[in-house]
Amino acid sequence: MSRKHKRRSEKVGLPAGSLIHIGEVKTERPELVLISFDGNQLTEKAAGNLTDLCLPEAVGTRWLNVYGLHDPDLMAEIGRTFNLHPLVLEDILNTDQRPKLDTYDDYLFLVTRFFSYDKSSMLIGSEQVSIVLGRDFVLTFQERRTGSFDPLRERLRANKGHIRTAGPGYLAYALLDIIVDRYFIALEQISDDCETLEDEVLDKPTTCVLQNIHKLKRESVTLRRAVWPLREVVNSLIRNESGFFTHETVLYLRDVYDHTVHFIESLEALRDLLAGMLDIYLSSISKRVNMEVRALTVMAMLFMPATLIAGVFGMNFKYIPLLDSADGFWVAMGGMATIASVMGLIFWRRQWLSRH
Amino acid sequence: MSRKHKRRSEKVGLPAGSLIHIGEVKTERPELVLISFDGNQLTEKAAGNLTDLCLPEAVGTRWLNVYGLHDPDLMAEIGRTFNLHPLVLEDILNTDQRPKLDTYDDYLFLVTRFFSYDKSSMLIGSEQVSIVLGRDFVLTFQERRTGSFDPLRERLRANKGHIRTAGPGYLAYALLDIIVDRYFIALEQISDDCETLEDEVLDKPTTCVLQNIHKLKRESVTLRRAVWPLREVVNSLIRNESGFFTHETVLYLRDVYDHTVHFIESLEALRDLLAGMLDIYLSSISKRVNMEVRALTVMAMLFMPATLIAGVFGMNFKYIPLLDSADGFWVAMGGMATIASVMGLIFWRRQWLSRH
Amino acid sequence: MSRKHKRRSEKVGLPAGSLIHIGEVKTERPELVLISFDGNQLTEKAAGNLTDLCLPEAVGTRWLNVYGLHDPDLMAEIGRTFNLHPLVLEDILNTDQRPKLDTYDDYLFLVTRFFSYDKSSMLIGSEQVSIVLGRDFVLTFQERRTGSFDPLRERLRANKGHIRTAGPGYLAYALLDIIVDRYFIALEQISDDCETLEDEVLDKPTTCVLQNIHKLKRESVTLRRAVWPLREVVNSLIRNESGFFTHETVLYLRDVYDHTVHFIESLEALRDLLAGMLDIYLSSISKRVNMEVRALTVMAMLFMPATLIAGVFGMNFKYIPLLDSADGFWVAMGGMATIASVMGLIFWRRQWLSRH
Amino acid sequence: MSRKHKRRSEKVGLPAGSLIHIGEVKTERPELVLISFDGNQLTEKAAGNLTDLCLPEAVGTRWLNVYGLHDPDLMAEIGRTFNLHPLVLEDILNTDQRPKLDTYDDYLFLVTRFFSYDKSSMLIGSEQVSIVLGRDFVLTFQERRTGSFDPLRERLRANKGHIRTAGPGYLAYALLDIIVDRYFIALEQISDDCETLEDEVLDKPTTCVLQNIHKLKRESVTLRRAVWPLREVVNSLIRNESGFFTHETVLYLRDVYDHTVHFIESLEALRDLLAGMLDIYLSSISKRVNMEVRALTVMAMLFMPATLIAGVFGMNFKYIPLLDSADGFWVAMGGMATIASVMGLIFWRRQWLSRH
Amino acid sequence: MSRKHKRRSEKVGLPAGSLIHIGEVKTERPELVLISFDGNQLTEKAAGNLTDLCLPEAVGTRWLNVYGLHDPDLMAEIGRTFNLHPLVLEDILNTDQRPKLDTYDDYLFLVTRFFSYDKSSMLIGSEQVSIVLGRDFVLTFQERRTGSFDPLRERLRANKGHIRTAGPGYLAYALLDIIVDRYFIALEQISDDCETLEDEVLDKPTTCVLQNIHKLKRESVTLRRAVWPLREVVNSLIRNESGFFTHETVLYLRDVYDHTVHFIESLEALRDLLAGMLDIYLSSISKRVNMEVRALTVMAMLFMPATLIAGVFGMNFKYIPLLDSADGFWVAMGGMATIASVMGLIFWRRQWLSRH
Repeated sequence: MSRKHKRRSEKVGLPAGSLIHIGEVKTERPELVLISFDGNQLTEKAAGNLTDLCLPEAVGTRWLNVYGLHDPDLMAEIGRTFNLHPLVLEDILNTDQRPKLDTYDDYLFLVTRFFSYDKSSMLIGSEQVSIVLGRDFVLTFQERRTGSFDPLRERLRANKGHIRTAGPGYLAYALLDIIVDRYFIALEQISDDCETLEDEVLDKPTTCVLQNIHKLKRESVTLRRAVWPLREVVNSLIRNESGFFTHETVLYLRDVYDHTVHFIESLEALRDLLAGMLDIYLSSISKRVNMEVRALTVMAMLFMPATLIAGVFGMNFKYIPLLDSADGFWVAMGGMATIASVMGLIFWRRQWLSRH
Repeated sequence: MSRKHKRRSEKVGLPAGSLIHIGEVKTERPELVLISFDGNQLTEKAAGNLTDLCLPEAVGTRWLNVYGLHDPDLMAEIGRTFNLHPLVLEDILNTDQRPKLDTYDDYLFLVTRFFSYDKSSMLIGSEQVSIVLGRDFVLTFQERRTGSFDPLRERLRANKGHIRTAGPGYLAYALLDIIVDRYFIALEQISDDCETLEDEVLDKPTTCVLQNIHKLKRESVTLRRAVWPLREVVNSLIRNESGFFTHETVLYLRDVYDHTVHFIESLEALRDLLAGMLDIYLSSISKRVNMEVRALTVMAMLFMPATLIAGVFGMNFKYIPLLDSADGFWVAMGGMATIASVMGLIFWRRQWLSRH
Repeated sequence: MSRKHKRRSEKVGLPAGSLIHIGEVKTERPELVLISFDGNQLTEKAAGNLTDLCLPEAVGTRWLNVYGLHDPDLMAEIGRTFNLHPLVLEDILNTDQRPKLDTYDDYLFLVTRFFSYDKSSMLIGSEQVSIVLGRDFVLTFQERRTGSFDPLRERLRANKGHIRTAGPGYLAYALLDIIVDRYFIALEQISDDCETLEDEVLDKPTTCVLQNIHKLKRESVTLRRAVWPLREVVNSLIRNESGFFTHETVLYLRDVYDHTVHFIESLEALRDLLAGMLDIYLSSISKRVNMEVRALTVMAMLFMPATLIAGVFGMNFKYIPLLDSADGFWVAMGGMATIASVMGLIFWRRQWLSRH
Repeated sequence: MSRKHKRRSEKVGLPAGSLIHIGEVKTERPELVLISFDGNQLTEKAAGNLTDLCLPEAVGTRWLNVYGLHDPDLMAEIGRTFNLHPLVLEDILNTDQRPKLDTYDDYLFLVTRFFSYDKSSMLIGSEQVSIVLGRDFVLTFQERRTGSFDPLRERLRANKGHIRTAGPGYLAYALLDIIVDRYFIALEQISDDCETLEDEVLDKPTTCVLQNIHKLKRESVTLRRAVWPLREVVNSLIRNESGFFTHETVLYLRDVYDHTVHFIESLEALRDLLAGMLDIYLSSISKRVNMEVRALTVMAMLFMPATLIAGVFGMNFKYIPLLDSADGFWVAMGGMATIASVMGLIFWRRQWLSRH
Repeated sequence: MSRKHKRRSEKVGLPAGSLIHIGEVKTERPELVLISFDGNQLTEKAAGNLTDLCLPEAVGTRWLNVYGLHDPDLMAEIGRTFNLHPLVLEDILNTDQRPKLDTYDDYLFLVTRFFSYDKSSMLIGSEQVSIVLGRDFVLTFQERRTGSFDPLRERLRANKGHIRTAGPGYLAYALLDIIVDRYFIALEQISDDCETLEDEVLDKPTTCVLQNIHKLKRESVTLRRAVWPLREVVNSLIRNESGFFTHETVLYLRDVYDHTVHFIESLEALRDLLAGMLDIYLSSISKRVNMEVRALTVMAMLFMPATLIAGVFGMNFKYIPLLDSADGFWVAMGGMATIASVMGLIFWRRQWLSRH
């Protein structure tokens, strides 16, 4: 967390709208991919700057993907071309934004996040995806090329369903739908790790397990912090006050909304599960203390009587029974063994020797 | 949980409205049961597809039960016949939906869940029941034939009350009423198991008991996640903005609403009970440690003085009192026994030997 | 809890409005008591059925008490006479309702609960009191005759205050007032038991104390579940949308509302107190472990040096100092005693021997 | 708490408006103090009843202090003179009311509470102050003469600020301001005690400290229960729907509102502090167990090897090395001392001998 | 905390609007810095009182910084010049206010706080910054000169962006922006300390660590108490009901609002982290007890058999095997060593000798 804040603190005192990229700076060149389509045709172009793209004027819907945000000049050029407010550009470059929706007269500006879970480190990585929805265009901004939207591109090319005729609003819906579906994938992977932990917590409650539980808990909080505002965003979209969506598309957005609510509930269930695992962990630790003390007690109980008997027959009284008997030693040893056996039997009966 | 998400993740990138059945795939053939009735007559038909049913035109109210959701062609046919939106069909096939109400112009679409509690595994199984309420028909969709609605069918056949004359709204109410009543049955069974656990937690607080407490807690969360949205659904129905219900039926829906609120409160009480059991469990564990330590202490207190006495008379000093006396040994043994007895008496008085 | 649900589950699938008495079935005959009064006169009649009562037509206000709900015919007759909806009758017979207010055109239907605390079992018993407030009548339904409303009857007979002239609304207020006052009595008794527990938790923290704390907690939840909806009910009455109350009576209802809020706050304070007692209980348990371990440590510290000394002089070396001296034994014994005394002094100074 | 409820339960069944004083009954005679003032003049009178006061008719603003509430006749007389509703009088006499505001046509009725903290018993005492604000008068009712409002009286006499010209609304504001300032004094004293406890909890975590933490927690709940409704009361006053306050006075009331919010936040911080102290307490207790066990372990580790060595040389084998050597004993003793020293050094290094 | 309240309590009974400085009294002279600017020119003046400043009449926007609040005469003079309400002046002098917004006809009055974190004491210091935003002026009040607003002054001098032409509303926005950015700096530093603690809590869970966790928790509460009302303040500013802000500036305020929400979420994540560290701390403590007991158990297990063997061969029976054998002693010693070795091996296998 501190990493991000440090970056942010570097901007203190600078005027708002300063185009400084807060994020992992990439050295590769940024890449622009433009897909223009209507019901009949679809053209794809890729280039390093806007001029090379020769943006077509008004051929149905245009979808411009921008990969790489570290070139302020390019960003400023895009801003001028699509008439974006400086604050929008600033928010695109600040890649630690929370999901939000800003409504401008000519376009909607959405900030969303992609999540990917890294199993080895048990950490959730996230990537900001900024979406600008205009009357006849959709812009998406990502820090690097990830291929997450490839299935959508395939559907566009294949002209499946009414995706090519339903306008930019439907395209924005499709992007959101993919983003929310990705949340479920991350959640599945966390759930899997959670189940592994659940077994470990009973078998071998090490401090490492505790740390992992807390790690997952923290990651689930990260997911939650991203999805709650997303739910609000989708809810605002459904209200459709600026008319960027058709009546039909709003029905589909309602579907996305249902998915986010479903996701939130699954997440809460996961958090409940993790909380329960903490209880079980602490109880296991407590149980361990118990078993250690019991082992010590059993030890003491088995040896103390024998040691006492040995002490008794080691006393230097003149007349001690058995001392002169030839079998005295074996009688004493037998006594020790008998007492230990009887005690062992009692412990076994009370299940003190079991591990649970 | 992960099971469901995995299935869901298989749909990533597919266009919304794709009719893919997310649920336990059945190999049996789907079955359709149609009941058409008005105040005077009632006809029942069962078939494997719509054509065989020869849907009658407008004879009072029609109730079509669909068992088995894995045949996309059949589902698409039903969708066409009753003019259902593709998203409705998709939601019917996704059988891990949360309860919800979607209002369309010509019909209401309700998703609800049946719950059944399996005592041996302490798990709640659930089944999605989708209900479509039109102006003159009711459709219900279930994954398999369970017979849950048989009492209602009996009442229809027997023409008891005004169920045959009150229209499809009243029929939908009757279905909801049965569903909510089933919630109470599941809750009763959980409560019974909970009481069993309550006894165990005091007698024998094993880790298994702890796990069962958490299991019941998790199941109660499952129930809660299903019933809170259901409450909202029923509340929306009561508002009756689309006029699918008569004024009289709204009174009955208010009754269902009271039942769900009652159920929620009973559930919260159950959760309080489970939380209290956790406290008692942890306290019992702590108490056990206490008793083990006490046992060890009592042991040490009984043997240490005796061992010391034996040691004292085992010293090799030339002049030790009693050593030469004939009764010396018995005096020493008597001393040991006396000290142990006095200590035992003290412990008994302080109730250190009791188990509580 | 399970007891109630089982009863409820017996009704699954039956049509709503079925008059089946859910509650403790009484074998005694039901009893009806009618009080008719206006500013000038008051008549009382008691009978087993409505016919015997010869309900007077329109003499001021009529108050009909019904004791015993197990006779469906009688209930149906009352329903017909006062024009009650079948759902109202069903709710009267289901005696595990939560407090609620249903507004009908001609009457208000209130469900409330009486509470009585049984000190020996530490359980709260409750009884449903259903009140129907019409334009010129008040009906009250109870499962048995308890005499709770006797003070009110006395005031009616004595014609104290304006109770006989203020109409049925004021009478309903007076009933509610008595019911809320009864809540305070139950709370007082619980508070008393709570104070007793508070002493015990410090002196002798047994598992039984823990169970009693949880019992009281659960009972306080029961009270809370009854009083929160009651607050809503009274609040709805104050809004007086159907005009059943005079402006003056609404002021009095506001007073009842203040009482319920006051009650809720006292209850929350009680719950805080119980939560605090749980903390103290767990801390006492932990303290006990501490004291046991300390006792063991003190024991070991007192005996170990002495045992070592005994062992040292029990060694078989040829030349051991003091062994041949006549006072050697007493020197050794003195050493043991000295060490034990010094240690005892140190422990006493550090307050290890005190019990706190 | 139970004390108050018992008193309240004595009123069960009595008609509302019965003037029965619920509070600590005073034997002294009640006292009335009347201050009449306008911008030019101020007259003060004190008497035991209203007649002796010869209430002046309409000379600016009149402020009547009533000390002592146990004389129902006097209260009834005041009620008649100022035209107060019976419920207002009843609420004045019930001195365990929660803060509230009742709006009548001719006056506002405010119930507030004074708090005073008793350091020796760590308990908060409270006193109800009822304020009636009319168009040209202010009435204040207290159980006894405390002098809390003396500074205000001084300001009236000194004619400081615009207190004598700003009307009864401003006077009521000034009373509220003093009451809220008193809350801060009580909070300061609790905070001081809290800091003392904070030191003790680390140094000497006795059960007494735990009880005191819970006591302070409970008292802070008492304060909170009084100040939350007061906040609502002040908020209602600011809305000024009945026009009892000038626009200017409303600004001052907003100031009082800010104070109450500030107070609530300080109180929440105090509660957080107390919760943190509970954690530290429990952790200290746990730490103590740890140290006791460690002491025992160290003891055992220091003595066990020595005892074993003594035992070894106490065996009766014919040929045991060193036994016949003249220095054998000292070698054995040296061995014991060396082992103990080495172990002591290890413990010291691992900081097992430190107390933290 | 108590420090502040004590100061506040000194004001009890004084009329509202009394200009008494509640805060750390400075002995230095107060200082006034005036910056007047419009698009073309900018003049800066510094003086000790208003007269020396010769306030220019209407040259674009004037920004007056006041450092030092302890001179009531100066404050009163400023109040007269800018027509401020007495309550505003009182709030400026009371430097323990919570953030708030008061709307007057001619100006807005904002109270905000600067935070600075002192790493050595782990305490957050805060300083009240009061801002008055008029139609053509901005006043800022601070207790001392800190240089926090220097970057803004630089931007004004450099005429970067549209800060000199956008009016006083934009200037107020810029001030708020700097204040919120400072919050992030404090949070970063706390997060750093938090990470240090996180390592310590696992390695060496001393009581000091616990106290530091609670200290950071308390400081995070302090931050939270400041930022929640600030969020409300900014939200009110965005509504812009009095028209102090241009439409463009409102967009920028929305940006500040996003920052405060982002800050709140980061803070909540920090609090979750601290709560998790508490769990880990308590678990570590518990683990320590476990390890101590285990060490004791291992000790006892290694020595008890050996001690018993020594005791057995120390018995005085006439015929004990091995006693007369020349190698008897070594056989016994070998037995002791073997048993200890075998046990050590078992412990090593069960990982009882590891530290985790």
